[in-house]
Amino acid sequence: MITLRSYVGGEWVEGQGTLETLVNPATEEPLARAGSAGLDRAAALDHTRRVGGPALRALTFAERGACLKAACDVLQAKREELIDLAVANGGNTRGDAKFDIDGATFTLASYATLGQSLGARRVLVDGEGVQLGRTPRFHGQHVLVPRHGVAVHVNAFNFPAWGLAEKAAVALLAGLPVLTKPATSSAMVAARMIELWVEQHIFPTGALALLLGGAGDLLRHVGPQDVVAFTGSSDTGQLIRALPEVVRHSVRVNVEADSLNAAVLGPDVEPGSDTWDMFVRDVLRDMTQKAGQKCTAIRRVLAPAPLAERLRDELVERLAAIVVGNPAHEGVRMGPLATAQQRDDVRAGIDQLARDGRLVHGSASLAPVGAPAGKGFFVGPVLIEVEPGAAAPSVHAREVFGPVATIVPYTAGAAEAIEIVARGQGGLVSSLYSDDSEFVSELVLGLAPYHGRLFLGSARIAEQSPGPGTVLPQLVHGGPGRAGGGEELGGLRGLHFYMQRTALEGARPVIDKIVG
Amino acid sequence: MITLRSYVGGEWVEGQGTLETLVNPATEEPLARAGSAGLDRAAALDHTRRVGGPALRALTFAERGACLKAACDVLQAKREELIDLAVANGGNTRGDAKFDIDGATFTLASYATLGQSLGARRVLVDGEGVQLGRTPRFHGQHVLVPRHGVAVHVNAFNFPAWGLAEKAAVALLAGLPVLTKPATSSAMVAARMIELWVEQHIFPTGALALLLGGAGDLLRHVGPQDVVAFTGSSDTGQLIRALPEVVRHSVRVNVEADSLNAAVLGPDVEPGSDTWDMFVRDVLRDMTQKAGQKCTAIRRVLAPAPLAERLRDELVERLAAIVVGNPAHEGVRMGPLATAQQRDDVRAGIDQLARDGRLVHGSASLAPVGAPAGKGFFVGPVLIEVEPGAAAPSVHAREVFGPVATIVPYTAGAAEAIEIVARGQGGLVSSLYSDDSEFVSELVLGLAPYHGRLFLGSARIAEQSPGPGTVLPQLVHGGPGRAGGGEELGGLRGLHFYMQRTALEGARPVIDKIVG
Repeated sequence: MITLRSYVGGEWVEGQGTLETLVNPATEEPLARAGSAGLDRAAALDHTRRVGGPALRALTFAERGACLKAACDVLQAKREELIDLAVANGGNTRGDAKFDIDGATFTLASYATLGQSLGARRVLVDGEGVQLGRTPRFHGQHVLVPRHGVAVHVNAFNFPAWGLAEKAAVALLAGLPVLTKPATSSAMVAARMIELWVEQHIFPTGALALLLGGAGDLLRHVGPQDVVAFTGSSDTGQLIRALPEVVRHSVRVNVEADSLNAAVLGPDVEPGSDTWDMFVRDVLRDMTQKAGQKCTAIRRVLAPAPLAERLRDELVERLAAIVVGNPAHEGVRMGPLATAQQRDDVRAGIDQLARDGRLVHGSASLAPVGAPAGKGFFVGPVLIEVEPGAAAPSVHAREVFGPVATIVPYTAGAAEAIEIVARGQGGLVSSLYSDDSEFVSELVLGLAPYHGRLFLGSARIAEQSPGPGTVLPQLVHGGPGRAGGGEELGGLRGLHFYMQRTALEGARPVIDKIVG
Repeated sequence: MITLRSYVGGEWVEGQGTLETLVNPATEEPLARAGSAGLDRAAALDHTRRVGGPALRALTFAERGACLKAACDVLQAKREELIDLAVANGGNTRGDAKFDIDGATFTLASYATLGQSLGARRVLVDGEGVQLGRTPRFHGQHVLVPRHGVAVHVNAFNFPAWGLAEKAAVALLAGLPVLTKPATSSAMVAARMIELWVEQHIFPTGALALLLGGAGDLLRHVGPQDVVAFTGSSDTGQLIRALPEVVRHSVRVNVEADSLNAAVLGPDVEPGSDTWDMFVRDVLRDMTQKAGQKCTAIRRVLAPAPLAERLRDELVERLAAIVVGNPAHEGVRMGPLATAQQRDDVRAGIDQLARDGRLVHGSASLAPVGAPAGKGFFVGPVLIEVEPGAAAPSVHAREVFGPVATIVPYTAGAAEAIEIVARGQGGLVSSLYSDDSEFVSELVLGLAPYHGRLFLGSARIAEQSPGPGTVLPQLVHGGPGRAGGGEELGGLRGLHFYMQRTALEGARPVIDKIVG
């Protein structure tokens, strides 16, 4: 069995002491070991800051973009190998694995192109210059420069490829070196990605470090120029935010956490119409893709009460046809959850949600295809339904991170739908499906304060839409409140988190010369 | 003696129990009383959120801008009365008082103009739209909408007018109602401002509440749509950041805290030149204006070692001519500190800094003009000097919030100057005085990551420059690390803190219709 290693201080380092075993979540077969005990995290951060930082800052945006393009090419050349790893270690179907890995390459390519377009500069100009005095000579101009610290990326288990790449692409293009920590349970894909990049000298020495295993005291060594980006549970996000070192040094923290993403079906949508079909397809995709382990997956399905029964029946019929099992096995449409812990959490969550309403699909007697008897962390798709007007406190407060959704009927139009969705206290994305532009307008204005993204589903985009669950590098990803208050990606916007905005105030010719 | 009242829930409310006494810091004469015991802070926040929020959001940007213009006009009409209050309650000279009050009106006017320019809209478009699919029909557009919460503003004692106005102008223009809490000791100006605005119905009901007295449990009642902006000590900023409710709800917090602002004299600047004179003038202004109680005041004066002695002698000579005393008295150039506590803190700070070097100006035997014997919170201007190459840990770590600066000689050019300034671990503003564009360029690139603003002093702007200590509404105000990691103002940028950025993803005609 292989032992995965960390890549810190420009070297591959094996953890000491007892190592954690990574398994195939469909068979529980051991695949690799990893651990980080004994690793000097302060030194790892320092090397990244001190060696990687200056090396990256010496490059122009175009040069950093070229690194990202090369990183993307390497992954594409090894796509099949990475897919196989994701199927084995992630419980992913091939489709799930492609979604993760192609998401990574698409994001890298997207930021590579952005870097190219920024060209041979190292300082970003932010907005127009302003006249500050009686004459244009006294001038102000905002600029953005890379911080002199390290970006610490703590990623979730569900997207080992995309999670690593989307955070790293943005930080590295901004000029900040990265120490990335994948979730251990599904780390084989991320470890292999870094290995490929190191072998081919894609990034300058020190620009991208990998910590494999527990974070340990990593975040106790951050300083005032560092930033932390975390994706995972709300509880861990809160712990990070309140760490004394984080607070003392005003360390920037981006948290992307729990989200009870809603999908609202408009009262105008007729069963069987193109918009209806798109809605049903998107709900089903989000429930089953990655076995529902997507932070953007639809959790709450708001349907007009008169349509709720028809919708439920259609969803139940389609869910019944989903073949659950070992994703290495032919014909399997949905794999297991990532870990035993996740399976137990999801089961407990289902019990809690079901107490708010009733279970209309899903049973305990699941017989996963192609998995050894009694093995694997499987949970079949589960649909719950609540009564119109029910408070359903758990439905609006507990993110159950698996193939689980709840139908919430509404009766009183847009205002009620807004009120119900807002009970989630802030989310990453919600979606509206309607061809009634007044309804859509009202919902958008009412829901925007509570979301980082709103997906407007309609027949007009059905053919080219990836659905609300897909995060695109051009649009911001993050959300207020429960979702962590963060913001990633969004094209150029994403770089701001890793840079310092500074107002230059002085004589215009002097400033123009610096800004170039 | 008058009792100042809070304005919450649309009513003037007097605090219960023991009230705090506000005094004239030059004479210690009691002027007013204030307190907040017994006040229902949760209800105050709720009223602001529930009544003020919808009322503000119903207005367009232009209409909100018109409110700000009216608020500005009211202050200008009562300028003399407010100046008198600031002289009495703030220990301000008339010049200090004007700086504060005119800063308030200028900022209100500036955001009023911005509101007018944004026109009859309620949603801000953020950046260009992007094509997301194979055809332009699948489209993305970011927008900014007001959050549905309340902006809690906790202000510092030094700028009762400007501090209130600069925060409130931005939040109110963004569409977020405000609950503002001035520091109690100098609250008379802020209380009168709110009173004038309420009397003249400047803002919609509930849009601007005032809490006078201690914050108490105010911040334990914030929710996921609320934001907190704090100006004050780093210690309090850290407490706010780590409050469980703030962390749990991802409440946005802007902290503007301690800052060891540096002013760097270039090696090219000859004594007696225009740039030299500007440098000396700016250092002296920052040491004495508001008795040095400005968050942006120059604390560290970096001079090339060969020029340090000459600079010191000139500063000492000019400081000796500063008349300290009761600002109500003719000829007084510098007033007292705001409170006995501030005086004691500053004295302790001077002792600490002096251990890093030596005191070259300032003595304990101060005889303030026009103050009753033994009364008033006076500290005279103090200049300290350290040896070239000294570590001087306190000089780079302790903000002494009074008329105190330290000369730090440097010998090895721009690189050493950058290293010394960066020891401050992040600041609001630093300034460079040089006519050597290579030196300026190198310093700007080296210092920008550590600052929210860099002031480039040169003879070319001497005539129209207000110096680095003046915060302009067009430029961002805030800084990384020790300075709290915040960002305020900066024209339109300032509104972002109070708004939610949301990506709209869907059919272009639908989005274009919503965005208008």
